[in-house]
Amino acid sequence: MTLSEMTERLFRGEPRAVARAISTVENSLSDSSELMKAVFPQTGRAVVIGITGAPGAGKSSLVDKLAMYYKDRGDRVGIIAVDPSSPFSGGAILGDRIRMSALGVDKNIFIRSMATRGNLGGLSRATVDAVAILDAAGFDKVIVETVGVGQDEVEIVKTADVSVVVLVPGMGDDIQAIKAGIMEIGDVFVINKSDREGVIRTEKELQALLELAHRPDMWNPPIVRTVATENKGIEDLSSAIESYYEFQRDGDNLERRKAIARWRLLELLRERLLADILKPSGAGQLIDRLAVEIAEKKSDPYSAVERILKQ
Amino acid sequence: MTLSEMTERLFRGEPRAVARAISTVENSLSDSSELMKAVFPQTGRAVVIGITGAPGAGKSSLVDKLAMYYKDRGDRVGIIAVDPSSPFSGGAILGDRIRMSALGVDKNIFIRSMATRGNLGGLSRATVDAVAILDAAGFDKVIVETVGVGQDEVEIVKTADVSVVVLVPGMGDDIQAIKAGIMEIGDVFVINKSDREGVIRTEKELQALLELAHRPDMWNPPIVRTVATENKGIEDLSSAIESYYEFQRDGDNLERRKAIARWRLLELLRERLLADILKPSGAGQLIDRLAVEIAEKKSDPYSAVERILKQ
Repeated sequence: MTLSEMTERLFRGEPRAVARAISTVENSLSDSSELMKAVFPQTGRAVVIGITGAPGAGKSSLVDKLAMYYKDRGDRVGIIAVDPSSPFSGGAILGDRIRMSALGVDKNIFIRSMATRGNLGGLSRATVDAVAILDAAGFDKVIVETVGVGQDEVEIVKTADVSVVVLVPGMGDDIQAIKAGIMEIGDVFVINKSDREGVIRTEKELQALLELAHRPDMWNPPIVRTVATENKGIEDLSSAIESYYEFQRDGDNLERRKAIARWRLLELLRERLLADILKPSGAGQLIDRLAVEIAEKKSDPYSAVERILKQ
Repeated sequence: MTLSEMTERLFRGEPRAVARAISTVENSLSDSSELMKAVFPQTGRAVVIGITGAPGAGKSSLVDKLAMYYKDRGDRVGIIAVDPSSPFSGGAILGDRIRMSALGVDKNIFIRSMATRGNLGGLSRATVDAVAILDAAGFDKVIVETVGVGQDEVEIVKTADVSVVVLVPGMGDDIQAIKAGIMEIGDVFVINKSDREGVIRTEKELQALLELAHRPDMWNPPIVRTVATENKGIEDLSSAIESYYEFQRDGDNLERRKAIARWRLLELLRERLLADILKPSGAGQLIDRLAVEIAEKKSDPYSAVERILKQ
């Protein structure tokens, strides 16, 4: 498949071309460039929904049910599940197959997990590129699901049009652990597993925290109760998402889009600079040799970096 | 304080010099270089313990109780709390003060939170540098606590001598959400809040997952039950940590140290390359201007990066 064939099929929404394009942005920075230059002008139509929360909050079930809901309403839905916690094993791919069979093989739902490959970074960049690809391929809703509350994961969720934070009852005193940063990114809050004990207390505590939190845009984030495994509260969640989407679309959100653009630019720049440094033959061996010297305490990372930059 | 004064006082373990040195690695990449070149040769004596787990697992209480336990045994203990989820607010600093007053003002316990500053990265590098500073300052135990299970957070925990993963009972079916990556980094597992319902089930499920997981080093990670708020199980945790520390110290762990050194080197290289690109006057404005063009869809990140690199 040549690049122009790939993009042509991609813009028609062909699943195989979509999968191929995502693999490209995931595996090769240099091949991504031409592809993404063609993809970007075609983006901006999808509603991008970021969903985050701690492990065990039931995010995957929630995402699957929300996707089914949208599909039944006639939308095409793309799902990107960012799974940085399994960089070593094939866990992500296995997970895709399990979820795919639950969602049914369907042209209108596309699901893909993305995991880190080695330690050269680029996961955040590849993820937002994959979202752009789904957008350009005509998916009406693109859901980005991230496990955990790490630094990169927060950044990824912040690039979405609407960010949803998923909690569960019974976090008790520990709701304080959901620190300000997470509170600030949530446009919509979900208390999943809301048939469990403690839901009222969790909701009250969350409400109190939200009232304390400073929201310069005056949006008052709604709290939605769901039981994803029983398909309860999904319509409420979809309404809450739509409300915020309309709210932010009507506002002047250039500042926000500028901040996202700046972040993407710096992520890509960082990755590209490192790739350029590692390109010359011998660069890999030099890194390995210096790593051994540092491990043996014959050198330190700062001196080693200076030696690499001198070459 | 000149650099040589700072390092001299640092090596004597003076808290103010330690705090100053950590601020240096946190705030300025260029000032870090000379400092860390002096610090590195003095490292390698501390036992570095990484503690991770989902928000709400009670990590902070557990870390505080473990630190008190070590202190009572005569150790000096340093704590670095990585808090990437509150990049915007002063949450981290406030948290330090609260915890410091609980731990008591004590020359033998040093606690410091580290949060992201803007989006120029460097948190991981600054964190491992801070650990090295505490090590060089003669702290016997250095505990690195990270919230969440993000990509960077996993990498930081992997640099520790002993990695502890904290769970809580009642994760039910969702223990599967603790994916392979997290399972693989845990040398010791803690079920905190083990006075709660569901502890037996959680322990059985964890045991089953651990038996499935491939451990090339043949270490069988112990599971320790704790109730941190009541100071229960802390001695067991300390024994489990010590067992693994002795196990890995006796093994041939050059490969592991090499992998850590390589990761540190690449992190630092990435940060340094970006800093060099952004150094010339006008570079900041160029980035801002390109960010606006991307936000307005007049350009795309890939074309923008090429323009930056041409300059």
